[in-house]
Amino acid sequence: MSQVQDTLDRIGKHKGVLGCIIAGTDGSIHKTTLDEQLTQDYTSMVPSLTALARNMVRELDPQNDLEFLRVRSAKHEVMVAPKGDYVLIVIQDAAS
Amino acid sequence: MSQVQDTLDRIGKHKGVLGCIIAGTDGSIHKTTLDEQLTQDYTSMVPSLTALARNMVRELDPQNDLEFLRVRSAKHEVMVAPKGDYVLIVIQDAAS
Repeated sequence: MSQVQDTLDRIGKHKGVLGCIIAGTDGSIHKTTLDEQLTQDYTSMVPSLTALARNMVRELDPQNDLEFLRVRSAKHEVMVAPKGDYVLIVIQDAAS
Repeated sequence: MSQVQDTLDRIGKHKGVLGCIIAGTDGSIHKTTLDEQLTQDYTSMVPSLTALARNMVRELDPQNDLEFLRVRSAKHEVMVAPKGDYVLIVIQDAAS
């Protein structure tokens, strides 16, 4: 099994982690531990939110760059690590 | 001095905090500890990023709501706490 899938499965086993996705910044889906619908939902929104956050960081300082994004809601925490043309998305139960 | 300004000044004194702003979700400026230009820069971008994050949370689950947003860059961490028609924005040095 690919090293990437190993890593996803390992992250997926952390306490409270509901799932993880590797998406392209273009919204393409590369790897996921979630069902198709949820994967589609997150992948259709997270990359554009990440792009807006990166744009804000660079507007404020072109020498700076986005490293991580956390979206905390009442039920979940969505953690986003952008890397080149990809984003790693980890969804965690807010209560954990 | 107003209770709100007290709170801002107290947050502003935390180690590594570069400044804090209370803005309206409409981009209006209510209180700030930063200079005018920086305040304008953050206030012109953070509310729309926050709105997009809230929209994502609600699209995924209408019973859910955004509680907190963290934008971590190489140099800073921007923390955003939305509350009704306002957002509290705290900018912290990433190294602290």
